[in-house]
Amino acid sequence: MQTIKEYVQSNKDRFLEELFALLRFPSISADSKYKEDIVKTASFVADKLKEAGADKVEVCPTAGNPIVYGEKIVDPSLPTVLVYGHYDVQPADPLELWDTPPFEPTVRNGKIYARGAADDKGQFYMHVKAFEYMMKNNALSCNIKFMIEGEEEVGSAHLGDFVKANKDRLKNDVIVISDTSMISLEQPSIETGLRGLSYVEVEVTGPNRDLHSGVYGGAVANPATVLTKLIASLHDDNNHIAIPGFYDDVIELSKEEREALNKAPFDIEEYKADLGIDEVWGEKGYTSIERAGIRPTLEVNGIWGGYIGEGAKTVLPSKAYAKISMRLVPNQNSEKITNLFKKHFETIAPAYVNVEVKPHHGGEPVVTPTNSIAYQAAEKALEESFNKKPIPTRGGGSIPIVALFEKELNVKTVLLGFGLDSDNLHSPNEKYGIENYLKGIETIPLFFKYYAELNK
Amino acid sequence: MQTIKEYVQSNKDRFLEELFALLRFPSISADSKYKEDIVKTASFVADKLKEAGADKVEVCPTAGNPIVYGEKIVDPSLPTVLVYGHYDVQPADPLELWDTPPFEPTVRNGKIYARGAADDKGQFYMHVKAFEYMMKNNALSCNIKFMIEGEEEVGSAHLGDFVKANKDRLKNDVIVISDTSMISLEQPSIETGLRGLSYVEVEVTGPNRDLHSGVYGGAVANPATVLTKLIASLHDDNNHIAIPGFYDDVIELSKEEREALNKAPFDIEEYKADLGIDEVWGEKGYTSIERAGIRPTLEVNGIWGGYIGEGAKTVLPSKAYAKISMRLVPNQNSEKITNLFKKHFETIAPAYVNVEVKPHHGGEPVVTPTNSIAYQAAEKALEESFNKKPIPTRGGGSIPIVALFEKELNVKTVLLGFGLDSDNLHSPNEKYGIENYLKGIETIPLFFKYYAELNK
Repeated sequence: MQTIKEYVQSNKDRFLEELFALLRFPSISADSKYKEDIVKTASFVADKLKEAGADKVEVCPTAGNPIVYGEKIVDPSLPTVLVYGHYDVQPADPLELWDTPPFEPTVRNGKIYARGAADDKGQFYMHVKAFEYMMKNNALSCNIKFMIEGEEEVGSAHLGDFVKANKDRLKNDVIVISDTSMISLEQPSIETGLRGLSYVEVEVTGPNRDLHSGVYGGAVANPATVLTKLIASLHDDNNHIAIPGFYDDVIELSKEEREALNKAPFDIEEYKADLGIDEVWGEKGYTSIERAGIRPTLEVNGIWGGYIGEGAKTVLPSKAYAKISMRLVPNQNSEKITNLFKKHFETIAPAYVNVEVKPHHGGEPVVTPTNSIAYQAAEKALEESFNKKPIPTRGGGSIPIVALFEKELNVKTVLLGFGLDSDNLHSPNEKYGIENYLKGIETIPLFFKYYAELNK
Repeated sequence: MQTIKEYVQSNKDRFLEELFALLRFPSISADSKYKEDIVKTASFVADKLKEAGADKVEVCPTAGNPIVYGEKIVDPSLPTVLVYGHYDVQPADPLELWDTPPFEPTVRNGKIYARGAADDKGQFYMHVKAFEYMMKNNALSCNIKFMIEGEEEVGSAHLGDFVKANKDRLKNDVIVISDTSMISLEQPSIETGLRGLSYVEVEVTGPNRDLHSGVYGGAVANPATVLTKLIASLHDDNNHIAIPGFYDDVIELSKEEREALNKAPFDIEEYKADLGIDEVWGEKGYTSIERAGIRPTLEVNGIWGGYIGEGAKTVLPSKAYAKISMRLVPNQNSEKITNLFKKHFETIAPAYVNVEVKPHHGGEPVVTPTNSIAYQAAEKALEESFNKKPIPTRGGGSIPIVALFEKELNVKTVLLGFGLDSDNLHSPNEKYGIENYLKGIETIPLFFKYYAELNK
């Protein structure tokens, strides 16, 4: 029997090649023109699961993008681990800011550059390869189920129906997700919380057509100007979110919890230098770590209206738009927050424009326990692999499935992420370290081993 | 000798066909990809001037788009009229809002629908056809010079150099421009003032790359949010422009002047219904007519940043942009205002972003005299043609050449416009009434006749 380290060593070129093949699919779920690529990607994932040794592999249709399922039940009396991941990726634009094309994976300085390299193709595929090792070496100490979806980046709209309709098939003892980051290869960490999400699109309509800004300017409300006033009013001077009731359900952390959180290694000068900013920003009374982890936020993800081409056009636009998302923290509810936003935005809109608020998608915040067997197994696996005990952190991102699983299947999740915050997720030049990828493959079988042992 | 009415009657189909041919060129000056179409349009205009009887026709190169020149000197002792117009047009987007394609002129309900139909192809071409009539019927009572440029919609950047270098060739007694509107066919009017323009583009930069709004949201300033705060602060609660010094040079009109101005037919309910708005907007203390004519403005012509495609992307953008233009009134200076804006915008920008203000182009405000021979000739021509005495109005638009001519050639301008405010200039479905077009051709020879007579 080969050890996992030996297996990774002798197969690493193939592991990289396979990941590159997966990264070449432009499986962008936000844009319907990539539908065919989505289907091809799902089929590729299914083939790889079969090759690794999974049974009952199926590309399951949904009302949206398909979900890839596969399993290996070694012994019904053993605990069952469900691996969740997603094969869809964020849009790649702005394309001109990529140093190499987003769907032609390129290695530079030990990093794989490609859209989806870390989020989440590179991370879920580690599980496929770790599974391959365990199958080949008769080392699978738990039953395993894979569920790899194609709509995570657009809010997992059809996953809920699939989970509800497949409760038996998906039955498990713990869910493992590698779709988050750790502090560094020198300081492993495990995220123990995720923010929820409420994503809306607003449309402000002024006159019924674009107008000449000379003929009508100054006499008719400009929806772009009005939109700036509306958005500007959503944060007060202390950068608190100025929507009545927004913070009502937020659970404040205790002094001790905040102190523990702020013990994570964080160098503000390094942070600013990495981002190229002179000053950080955020809610008064909280540290940068707290602002990005335990506090709710409201961000403009996109804004547009009027003439945005080359040169100048003197137009008073008919419409202006923004995409706005709010990150939510434990005890906030995405539907409630979406409704609060909608009501507030409609209330503050002046009579000379019409506003429309369209909810895009939402997801609930979660906190994962640190006293569970699964967390302890993850802790031991990481400690063995990285020679350092991981510390718990609170992540700022959102994975809607975590709350959904907890509700529908009554199981908790372990966020076994191997990415880094600097991996440029959702940005140009997304990357994933080759070492992170290979270390991840090495660590996962240890998690299975300790999870089975601790369950005995 | 045919009268102009008879000539228009017997040639109107050809007059329309020729205009349609001119309108089919997508001569968009704001977008460099139409450069070749610009050149073709200039050449078409030159050919038509030659056919109509002009001498010394030339497509004059400039550092930008060419200027078409032509002239007919019948007798050096007669007064000389210079006709200015522009063959370039505004961009046609948003294309999806056009009922018929912008560069395939279509007639509906007696209106010609096409980009440039009124602004300014349909209007300057009336002069070419009126000139043709006067040549054929030996009725040219003044010398005439044509100068038709191709950069009016982008600020006439190279016209100044051309005018300075061709002072002798362009020497004239009055400039006539048909590039403005009248109240209606039932109530002719002559614009006696134009607003100036200062057009800038602002760029707000936050982090050096697009970020994941979950990982960084709340902890790093979002340039789109900051941009909304900056723009929102540019108008105060009374919709005064909140840039220090902005109004310093504005000459306030007297009570009598304001009363005269407000006597123009204006039905606010009709105005609101036409635009589909519930309420008008504007600077406190002024009427809609005043806001659109005699008061300076600041309008967002375009705003963009972050993800603006289909669906949702949770990005914290690196940059956000806006195109902002200010209309200026007599005694304001575009360079001074551009500098005031730049200084103010840079001053109010918070330390966590960088802002850059790029001036696009400017133009000076003008007032044209109503006691000149040229104005009286225009008045008589319109009265004869429309059976009603025209009233003077103040236009909200800008034609930078007017101030330039006054400065360089020391001559005044008559704004002999036949468009309507409802012609959708700069908007989808731009149109120009066939009757406006033909009435314009009828009126222009009368102007020449009266201008020569009054000069005797």
